[in-house]
Amino acid sequence: MTQEASEQARRVGIWLIGARGSISTCVAFGLAGIRTRSLDPIGLCTVRDPLARLPLARLEDLVVGGHDVCARDLWASAAELVKERILTERILEAARAEVEAISSRIRCGTIDVLDRELPGADPAAVALGSTSPREQIAKIAGDLAEFRAKEALDSVVVVNLASTEAARPEQAEWARLQRLEAALDEGRSQPASILYAYAAISEGCAYVNFTPSLGSAIPALRELAQRQGIPHCGSDGKTGETLVKTVLAPMFSARNLRVLAWQGYNMLGNRDGEILTDAAHRAAKLKNKDEALRSILRDEELHSHVGIDFVPSLKDWKTAWDFVHFEGFLGTRMSLQFTWSGSDSALAAPLVLDLVRLADFSLQRGERGEMAHTSSFFKAPIAGGGHDFRMQFQGLLDYAEKHLATPSPAATEAPKTRSRTGGGLRRPSEA
Amino acid sequence: MTQEASEQARRVGIWLIGARGSISTCVAFGLAGIRTRSLDPIGLCTVRDPLARLPLARLEDLVVGGHDVCARDLWASAAELVKERILTERILEAARAEVEAISSRIRCGTIDVLDRELPGADPAAVALGSTSPREQIAKIAGDLAEFRAKEALDSVVVVNLASTEAARPEQAEWARLQRLEAALDEGRSQPASILYAYAAISEGCAYVNFTPSLGSAIPALRELAQRQGIPHCGSDGKTGETLVKTVLAPMFSARNLRVLAWQGYNMLGNRDGEILTDAAHRAAKLKNKDEALRSILRDEELHSHVGIDFVPSLKDWKTAWDFVHFEGFLGTRMSLQFTWSGSDSALAAPLVLDLVRLADFSLQRGERGEMAHTSSFFKAPIAGGGHDFRMQFQGLLDYAEKHLATPSPAATEAPKTRSRTGGGLRRPSEA
Amino acid sequence: MTQEASEQARRVGIWLIGARGSISTCVAFGLAGIRTRSLDPIGLCTVRDPLARLPLARLEDLVVGGHDVCARDLWASAAELVKERILTERILEAARAEVEAISSRIRCGTIDVLDRELPGADPAAVALGSTSPREQIAKIAGDLAEFRAKEALDSVVVVNLASTEAARPEQAEWARLQRLEAALDEGRSQPASILYAYAAISEGCAYVNFTPSLGSAIPALRELAQRQGIPHCGSDGKTGETLVKTVLAPMFSARNLRVLAWQGYNMLGNRDGEILTDAAHRAAKLKNKDEALRSILRDEELHSHVGIDFVPSLKDWKTAWDFVHFEGFLGTRMSLQFTWSGSDSALAAPLVLDLVRLADFSLQRGERGEMAHTSSFFKAPIAGGGHDFRMQFQGLLDYAEKHLATPSPAATEAPKTRSRTGGGLRRPSEA
Amino acid sequence: MTQEASEQARRVGIWLIGARGSISTCVAFGLAGIRTRSLDPIGLCTVRDPLARLPLARLEDLVVGGHDVCARDLWASAAELVKERILTERILEAARAEVEAISSRIRCGTIDVLDRELPGADPAAVALGSTSPREQIAKIAGDLAEFRAKEALDSVVVVNLASTEAARPEQAEWARLQRLEAALDEGRSQPASILYAYAAISEGCAYVNFTPSLGSAIPALRELAQRQGIPHCGSDGKTGETLVKTVLAPMFSARNLRVLAWQGYNMLGNRDGEILTDAAHRAAKLKNKDEALRSILRDEELHSHVGIDFVPSLKDWKTAWDFVHFEGFLGTRMSLQFTWSGSDSALAAPLVLDLVRLADFSLQRGERGEMAHTSSFFKAPIAGGGHDFRMQFQGLLDYAEKHLATPSPAATEAPKTRSRTGGGLRRPSEA
Repeated sequence: MTQEASEQARRVGIWLIGARGSISTCVAFGLAGIRTRSLDPIGLCTVRDPLARLPLARLEDLVVGGHDVCARDLWASAAELVKERILTERILEAARAEVEAISSRIRCGTIDVLDRELPGADPAAVALGSTSPREQIAKIAGDLAEFRAKEALDSVVVVNLASTEAARPEQAEWARLQRLEAALDEGRSQPASILYAYAAISEGCAYVNFTPSLGSAIPALRELAQRQGIPHCGSDGKTGETLVKTVLAPMFSARNLRVLAWQGYNMLGNRDGEILTDAAHRAAKLKNKDEALRSILRDEELHSHVGIDFVPSLKDWKTAWDFVHFEGFLGTRMSLQFTWSGSDSALAAPLVLDLVRLADFSLQRGERGEMAHTSSFFKAPIAGGGHDFRMQFQGLLDYAEKHLATPSPAATEAPKTRSRTGGGLRRPSEA
Repeated sequence: MTQEASEQARRVGIWLIGARGSISTCVAFGLAGIRTRSLDPIGLCTVRDPLARLPLARLEDLVVGGHDVCARDLWASAAELVKERILTERILEAARAEVEAISSRIRCGTIDVLDRELPGADPAAVALGSTSPREQIAKIAGDLAEFRAKEALDSVVVVNLASTEAARPEQAEWARLQRLEAALDEGRSQPASILYAYAAISEGCAYVNFTPSLGSAIPALRELAQRQGIPHCGSDGKTGETLVKTVLAPMFSARNLRVLAWQGYNMLGNRDGEILTDAAHRAAKLKNKDEALRSILRDEELHSHVGIDFVPSLKDWKTAWDFVHFEGFLGTRMSLQFTWSGSDSALAAPLVLDLVRLADFSLQRGERGEMAHTSSFFKAPIAGGGHDFRMQFQGLLDYAEKHLATPSPAATEAPKTRSRTGGGLRRPSEA
Repeated sequence: MTQEASEQARRVGIWLIGARGSISTCVAFGLAGIRTRSLDPIGLCTVRDPLARLPLARLEDLVVGGHDVCARDLWASAAELVKERILTERILEAARAEVEAISSRIRCGTIDVLDRELPGADPAAVALGSTSPREQIAKIAGDLAEFRAKEALDSVVVVNLASTEAARPEQAEWARLQRLEAALDEGRSQPASILYAYAAISEGCAYVNFTPSLGSAIPALRELAQRQGIPHCGSDGKTGETLVKTVLAPMFSARNLRVLAWQGYNMLGNRDGEILTDAAHRAAKLKNKDEALRSILRDEELHSHVGIDFVPSLKDWKTAWDFVHFEGFLGTRMSLQFTWSGSDSALAAPLVLDLVRLADFSLQRGERGEMAHTSSFFKAPIAGGGHDFRMQFQGLLDYAEKHLATPSPAATEAPKTRSRTGGGLRRPSEA
Repeated sequence: MTQEASEQARRVGIWLIGARGSISTCVAFGLAGIRTRSLDPIGLCTVRDPLARLPLARLEDLVVGGHDVCARDLWASAAELVKERILTERILEAARAEVEAISSRIRCGTIDVLDRELPGADPAAVALGSTSPREQIAKIAGDLAEFRAKEALDSVVVVNLASTEAARPEQAEWARLQRLEAALDEGRSQPASILYAYAAISEGCAYVNFTPSLGSAIPALRELAQRQGIPHCGSDGKTGETLVKTVLAPMFSARNLRVLAWQGYNMLGNRDGEILTDAAHRAAKLKNKDEALRSILRDEELHSHVGIDFVPSLKDWKTAWDFVHFEGFLGTRMSLQFTWSGSDSALAAPLVLDLVRLADFSLQRGERGEMAHTSSFFKAPIAGGGHDFRMQFQGLLDYAEKHLATPSPAATEAPKTRSRTGGGLRRPSEA
C-alpha cells in the first residue's frame, strides 16, 4: 500500500515523435477516456495478470507531449478518425480539456532529409532538418529537457511513431559509437530517427521505436544506451497481419505440415499507407513482415510474398488477406486463408502504452540496453530471438514472474536520480 | 549405434479400431508409401527435432491390424479416397501387397448398442454386440493376443478411430474400477469404446483414443491403467478447425483484445460427417470444440457457436469458416475470419502414427497412466491442462528434452517382458 | 418544366409499420439528410437513369408517419445506431427538427396475437391487439385517414417494416375476399400484417410489404387490391446475402457448372436477429432465402443450407458467409466463397424509398394489383417470375423505358381524386 | 430427323494453337471422356437449352489437331495434370488410343519473335519463327490444308490457346488490310498470333482467340475476315475471377451502391502464370481484367487494382481473392469479399468446345465477321458491347432463339462448299 502510494506520486512523461499522427491521436484520446473511466483499457496487456501486479506507472499518471513535422492540428486528426468511425464525437467531447493540454505540449520536430518534399510538411521542420545534425539533436534534447522540467516528471519515455523513413544502405559510421560521434561532429547527415534516438538516450529518456525506421537499432546507439544505462526497444510494432502470421506459422511447423506458399496482401488507406506507396519507404516494412515468417518456417523452398497496397477508402482500417498453401500427409494439398480487418491505430495505441509502462519500469530498475522481454511487440525485435509470438509473449510473462518473485525497492531509487541528473546536453560518449 | 540396432529389432503393432475407415486407410497406405520411400513423412512431428532424436519405434517396423464393424473392403475405402483426390492410383499400386497383408489382419469388432441400426453394419458385429460385456471383452482381447503372438510383436498400441459414439449420461459405475467390474459381471451394457479400452489395457497394450467417445477417459479405466502400468491418452484428435482455434485464441488473450463472438461453421461430407447429423452423436464433438475456446478466453460474456453440417460433396475435405468479432482500444470493433480447407483423414493419420510411437515409447519406459505430454494432439486431453496449443506443444518438446538428457536403457527391458507376459485374459483388477 | 412544377406540388405520405425500428430510423434520418443536402441518395436506384427521368415524387416531398408497437423513442433507436457506428452524431444533429415532427406522427399500432409476450411491447398495442379484427382495422384506417387529412397528402404509401411474424399454416379464409370478410365479421383472429394490409388497401393507400410476413400476399387481399384499384408489392426485401446469391447463381447456371452444395451462414445481432432465434419466426425467412436459389439452379440433387444465427455484438451489421461447391469439366471440384458485411438497415432504407416512389407512381398511373416490375427488390416477389436478379432488374428498366416512351399526363389526375375520396371506412367488398 | 442425320455426318476439325498446353490437354481428354460416356459435358453451355436445340456439330464428330512450339509430349502434360489432381489416371487410360491419334496430328508451329529465348522452345519452332512472315503463314496454312484433307473435314475452327504474347505498341500497318499485306510482302516481323490468324482466315477456317494476344482483333484482319466471309471471335477467355467480377459489378451499379475500391489478387502456378511474371506479358492480361470492371461501374473515382502473382505450388489451381469496398446509404462503409478457387484449364476447356461449335455453326450459316453473340466468353470481346455478363449471356440466348425461330437449311449448303474450296494458299486480299 505504501508502495502503491509512492508509485502514484510518480509522474511519467510520454514523448511521441509524430505526435499528431493517428496512433498518437488514439493514445491521447484513449488515455483521456481511461482517466475519465469512459473507456476500458482494452488492448493493453499490462492491465492483466501477471503484468498488472508489477508496480508499473499508472495510466492516470502519464503526461503526453511530443514532436511533429506537420503543422496540422491534433483536432483535425481526431476529426478524421471520427469520420473513419474509430473515434466518436462523444469521446472527443469528454477529452477536450485534456487534449488541449497535450496539444500545447507538441513542438515542431526535425524532418528526415529524404522527406523534405513531403506534402504538408511544416516549413519550420524543414528548416530544422537543414541544420547540422548536432544542432538538430540539441533542439530535440532541449525540448525533452523542457518537458521534463516544466511538467516535473520523474521520468520520460520517447516513442517513435513517425511515418516510416526511406530505407538507406548501411553506413560504416553506424557500427560504432565513436565513429557516429565523429560523423556528427563532421556534420554528416543522418536519418532523423537516429537523431531523435540519440537525443532521447543522451537525455536519459527510455526509448521505444514502434516504426521500421532505424532509431536505436544501429550498433552505435546500442553502445550509447549501454553507456548511459538506458533501456530501449523496437522495431516496428507487430499489430495486425504479422501478428497473426507469427501466431499461425508455428502451428504448421509444430505439426510438420509443409508450407508451400504464404501470400500476404495488405491494404491500407491512411497516411502510413500513402507513404508506403513509395518503394524506398515500403522496403523496410516488407522486409520485416517477410523475415518473421521465414525465420519461423525455415524452409528454403517456401514461396512467400507480402504486398502492401494503398486503398484510400479504407483509411485506417487495415484489411489483409493471407493465403497459406500447404502439403499434408500423402502429398495432399490444403489451405488456410484469413482476412484480418482492424483499425491499425487503435491496435497500435494500447501497445504504445504497454511499452511506455514497461520501459519506464526498466528505467526504474536500472535495466540497460535492449529490452529482450518486449519482443512480442515487434516485427523485428532489436534484441533478436525467435519470432514465434507465443514464445515471445511467454518471455514477457516470465519477466513479470521473475520481478514479482524478487521485488527490488532499492533499485527504484537510482534511476530516478539518474533520470533527473541525466538531463542536460552532455555528449554521452564523453560521460 | 548398438541402441539403434536393438531398436530396429523391435516390432510394434498398431491395432486400429475402425480399421477400414478413412483415417485407417490413410494410415495403411501412408505407412506403405513411407516404407517404399515414395512418400515423405509430412505431418508427423516425431520425425523432427527434438522428437526425432528419441529412440522411438521406426515407422518401418510398425505392423498394422485392427477391428471394424462394417463389412466393406479396405480397397473400397481406398477407391473412395482416390475419387476424392486424397489418395492416387499410383499410391495404391505401390502399396498393394502390404495392404493385402493388413486386410488379412482385420477382425470383426463389436458394435455399440446404440449403433446397431447403422446402415452397412456387419451382422457379425451386431451379433457380437448383443453378447454380454464380458464376452465382448474376451473376443477383443483374444484378437489382440492373437495379433501379438502371430506377428511376434514386442508391443501393441490400440488406437480408437471408430466413428463417434452417441453421448450418454454419466454412469455411477464409471467412477471406480471396482464398480465397473461389478457392472460387467452383472452384464450391464457399456459403450463399445469402454469395452475396447478395457480389453486393450488388460491385455497390456498402450491405448490411444482419437475420438470423442469415452474410451479410457472414465475414472474406472484410468484406475485400471494405473494398476496395469499402462500409458494411455485421448480424447478427440485436434486436427483442423479446433487446432487453429487454440492457436489463435491465445493471441487475443495475450493482447487483451476482447472477443465478443466466435462463430465456427464446419462442413464435412464423409462417414463421420454423416454420423454427426444425428444430434446424440454430434453432442460430444461440439462440446469439445467449444470448451477448448472457452477455456482459453475465460470471458463469461463471450458469445460462441460451433456448428457441424453434413455436406456430402465435400467428402473428406473438411471446410470450416470461423468468424471472430472482437473489441479493441477505444471501443473499436474488428474481425478476423479464416477458412480452413483440409482432408480430415490425411490430417489425422500422421498424428495417429506420432501417438503410436509416443505411446510405445512410454510403454518401454514404464510410464503409466495419462500421457500428459500428448495434450497438443487432443481437443479434450484426458490429463487436463490448458488448451493453448503452443503451450501444449512446448510440453511435448520439454518431455523430449528431458528424456534426451536422461536416457534410461534399463527401463526398456522391463516393459518388453511385461508386454509379453501381460497377455492372457486375467481380470486385471484381480492382478 | 410545367410538369416538374406540378410534380413538386404533390405531397406524398410514407406510413411505416414498425416506425421506430432501425430501418425506419434510417429512412427518417436519411430523408432529412438528403433534404438538407448533407447526404447523397446512395443506394436508391430511382435516382439513376432511366428511373430518374420518370416523374416520381420528389424525395423532398415525402412526409413520414407510422405505427409502432413498442413504446421506446425514435431517438433511442437513433442513439443505438450511433453506437453501432451506422448513424453519426452529426447526422442526428442536422435532422433534429425534422425527426421531432416524424416522432409526433407515430401512432400506437396493433400487435400480432402471437407476439403479445414480446418484451418491450406497448401495453396499448397489446390492448388493441385484443380487440376484434374489425376494430383493429378501423383503428389503423382511422390513423391513415387522419395522417392524409392533417398533412394534406395527395397520396399515401403504407410500408410494412415490422419484425417478422410467426409463420402460420394456410387458412381457408385467405383464399377468397368474400371468405376473409366473413371471417373478419365473425371476429376470427388474423395475423397483424393482414389487418394492416387490409386497412391500407381499403383506405386507398398503395402497399409495400418489405417483410416475410403475409401482408397483401394472400389471394383475398390481392382480390381486394384489384377491386380497389390499388398497386401493391412484396415480400421480403432482398438486401444482402440473398441479393448476392441471386446474382451469382445464374452464372453457374449459364456456364453449366454443376453446383453440388451451397451453404449460407448469416449472422445478425439486431432486434430482427433476436426475433429470428425463435423457430416459428425464422421459418418464413429461411424459406425465402433457399427458394430463390433452388428456383435458379433447378437441380434436385443440389445440397443447400441457409442458417441465421443471432450474434448480439454484430448488431445491425449483418455478416454472411456463403460457400459454393461446384463441379466443372473433367469432374474437377471447385469453390467460390464470399463474405458479405453490411448494415442491414442502411441497405434496406433506400430500397424502401425507391419502392414508395414507384408505388406512388403506379397509383398515379392507375396501375392496379401486383407491381411485377419491382421483383428485383424482393426475396419472394408476389407477382412471381424468376429470381435471377439481373433479369428482374431489367424488368424494372424496361418498365421505366416503356413509361418514358408513352407519358400519360391525364392518368395522373384520376388517382389523386380517388385517393382523396377513397378514404373513410367503407367495407371495400361492398364498394 | 433427316437434318439430325445429315448433321451427324459432318466432320469438324479443331485446330489448337498451343496444342500441348494444359487447356488443350483438357480439351483432348475431355472430348475422349465425353465420347466414351465416362465424363459428363459439364461446363459447356451449348449442351443446355436453348443452345442444345441448335443443330451444332456433335461433340462426337470433332477431330482435334494443332500446332505447338514446345517439343514436350501431350502425355507429359497429362501426367502433370494428374499430379495436380485435375485429370485422373482412370481418365488417361480410357483416352489412350484417342489421344495418341491427336498427338500424331500436332505439328511444329512458329514462335513469336519475342519468345525465342523461352526455355523448352522447340528449335524447329524457333527456326520457323526466323523465316519471313509469308513463309511462316504458308507453313501454317499448309498444315491446316493438310489437316482438312487428310481427315476429310467439312470445316475447321482454329483456336488460339498459346501462352500470352508480349504486348506491343500499336503498328500503323495493323489499321488496314492493304497495309498489312504490304508489310508482310516487305518481310516486316509480326506477332505470331497475327500470322496464325491470317493463315486461318485465308484458309477458310473460323477463328477463335482465347488469349489476350492480338490475333484477329486488329482492323486489318477484321477486314480480311469480312472479305473471306469468315466468322471469328475473341479475345481472352473469361473463365474465373473476371467472370465473377462482371457478374457482381452490375449488382452494385443496379443498386446504386458506390464502389470505393475493388482490389483483385490472382494467384496462379502454371506455365501461363510463369509467363505472366514478365511485365510485358502481364500487361495485356491485366488491362482486360481491369477494363471490364471500369466499363461496368463507370465511376472515375473508383480505386481499382488487379494483380497476378506466380505461386508455383498452385499449378493450374487459380486462386483469387477480391475485396470490394463500397458505400451505402447514410455514408456507411460495407464490403464484399470473395475467394475463387478453380482449375483454370478445366474452366477454359469446355468454353473452347462451346466456341468451336458456335464458330462452326456461324460458318455454316454464312455469318461473317465478329461473332457479337459470343461476348459472354471473353474478357475483351472484339465486337465490343458491354461487359455485364448476364446481358452478354442474354445476347447468346437471343441469338439461339432467333435461329430456332428461323431455321435456314439452305444456308448450310454454301459454307460447306466454300470451306472445301476455300482451302489453298491464295492470298485472300487478291480474291
